Amino acid sequence: MKPRLAPALKVTRWLNTSSPIELEALKDRVVMILAFQMLCPGCAVQALPQARRVRALFAPDDLMVLGLHTVFEHHEAQGGEAALTAFLHENRIDFPVGIDMPGETPASLPLTMQSYRMQGTPTLILLDRKGEIRKQRFGHTEDLLLGAEIMSLIQEPSQSA
Amino acid sequence: MKPRLAPALKVTRWLNTSSPIELEALKDRVVMILAFQMLCPGCAVQALPQARRVRALFAPDDLMVLGLHTVFEHHEAQGGEAALTAFLHENRIDFPVGIDMPGETPASLPLTMQSYRMQGTPTLILLDRKGEIRKQRFGHTEDLLLGAEIMSLIQEPSQSA
Amino acid sequence: MKPRLAPALKVTRWLNTSSPIELEALKDRVVMILAFQMLCPGCAVQALPQARRVRALFAPDDLMVLGLHTVFEHHEAQGGEAALTAFLHENRIDFPVGIDMPGETPASLPLTMQSYRMQGTPTLILLDRKGEIRKQRFGHTEDLLLGAEIMSLIQEPSQSA
Amino acid sequence: MKPRLAPALKVTRWLNTSSPIELEALKDRVVMILAFQMLCPGCAVQALPQARRVRALFAPDDLMVLGLHTVFEHHEAQGGEAALTAFLHENRIDFPVGIDMPGETPASLPLTMQSYRMQGTPTLILLDRKGEIRKQRFGHTEDLLLGAEIMSLIQEPSQSA
Repeated sequence: MKPRLAPALKVTRWLNTSSPIELEALKDRVVMILAFQMLCPGCAVQALPQARRVRALFAPDDLMVLGLHTVFEHHEAQGGEAALTAFLHENRIDFPVGIDMPGETPASLPLTMQSYRMQGTPTLILLDRKGEIRKQRFGHTEDLLLGAEIMSLIQEPSQSA
Repeated sequence: MKPRLAPALKVTRWLNTSSPIELEALKDRVVMILAFQMLCPGCAVQALPQARRVRALFAPDDLMVLGLHTVFEHHEAQGGEAALTAFLHENRIDFPVGIDMPGETPASLPLTMQSYRMQGTPTLILLDRKGEIRKQRFGHTEDLLLGAEIMSLIQEPSQSA
Repeated sequence: MKPRLAPALKVTRWLNTSSPIELEALKDRVVMILAFQMLCPGCAVQALPQARRVRALFAPDDLMVLGLHTVFEHHEAQGGEAALTAFLHENRIDFPVGIDMPGETPASLPLTMQSYRMQGTPTLILLDRKGEIRKQRFGHTEDLLLGAEIMSLIQEPSQSA
Repeated sequence: MKPRLAPALKVTRWLNTSSPIELEALKDRVVMILAFQMLCPGCAVQALPQARRVRALFAPDDLMVLGLHTVFEHHEAQGGEAALTAFLHENRIDFPVGIDMPGETPASLPLTMQSYRMQGTPTLILLDRKGEIRKQRFGHTEDLLLGAEIMSLIQEPSQSA
């Protein structure tokens, strides 16, 4: 299957960054996007600590780690920016996290979740240096595999090379 | 040090139970109280899963497991009942959880936390069959020790015996 | 089922102790026997570290922890005393370990294993203060349960009480 | 520091392979060598299970996983081939394992251990497709890092390319 260009992130607000993140501006770097919800146990116990390990291991010039808060359930509990800010602080997450834009109706998935056709949280997405989606996986990914996948993309030549 | 009678729980609302819990009515049973905050990583990753294991292991007639949501930071994020309800649902916690009553000022600790002189979350408290505080510990307790401590209290004669 | 008195341990040699262990002499104490083989992964990874935790937690006057090396396979690899001594040293096991007496033929189970009707390794056995077998379990036991089971036996009155 | 060509493995006997392994013949593939001792707890609990995960993840044409039994202590317990064979069987290790050739005197390190200047077990060594040593690490390596390091070497062009 031919990789497709990653859709733009539709985000109401970015935390942990002084200016909004545009995927377009990240080309030439590999990007890992972790879509999560703060009340999803698999996210809190496994996926977010893994994302912190990834961020600590790879050079920022090679890999950008982004969080995406894709609230599709318990909106009243997870929907507030204050709650997310506190959650990121307590869990020592300091990479940029965008709040996915709510869908058309209360029952709709948020917009980025829709455009990437995500099935739930956690979802891990890897973009290559050209901005194309190379991996998208719902659920847990083992560290050994993730390390290998990221390195494989880092070593690919960028578009401009 | 002589054990002291456990102070009454000052709770604004109980979840996972059809009627409010009174410690007085639990005499003749051992009681484990886990004071937690939903955004405290040590609570979500270690203490609450342990409380679920404890509840699954011991007979309800011997041991009552209670949660106490002692919000003393990030009130705007953790203070809502809807958020706590969603959190308990996602983490499959089905034992009764009380919401500790807010303190006199926004900077005060909640009232039960004050009366038990708790230092933070998670805090684990064990009451014997007479309703006296026999253990109170801030931080993590190993399973082997906790199993032994609970069984030791279960085997003590109750007040009425 | 009525508990039965624990059969005597038939041991060719005791390590980590200056004099042989007799169960008869341990009455009035609770005894935990861990039957293991040094090349059994479940023993090395789970059961022996757990036995070390048990020994560290309970008072020696209340609980005696014993190991029993029940070699029923790979005799040429596990049968030597030098190998077992090195294994205990490397794994920092300092409680007494007896070498179960070989069976009548090379295909027979060792004698203590036979008399306790063990099914494999690891097997965990708990004796009460009267020397009766109260628990015998093949495979892994959770720490929470084991802590409770041991404490329950410790609190029973001894024969002489 | 300029990488040096990996010294030949000096091995008395290979297990899990029908013919002896020569590093020279493995050129064009990445090679991971895990030096271990069967009675070293860090090897049994962490390094060997990790080596099994590595072998399961990468294609054999890209990566060859080798074990090296470098007995430098407890020779009487670990030195026998029967013991090692049983250990590999119980721990389900099916990649080739060589027995490092004993040193000149009983107190000497085995010969391959000497020529690689290893400091102990476990030691992890990565060779690139040209047969040069690119990583050598005593102790534990995190999965995320190891996955990245192996993939990085896999993607390098081979000598003949």
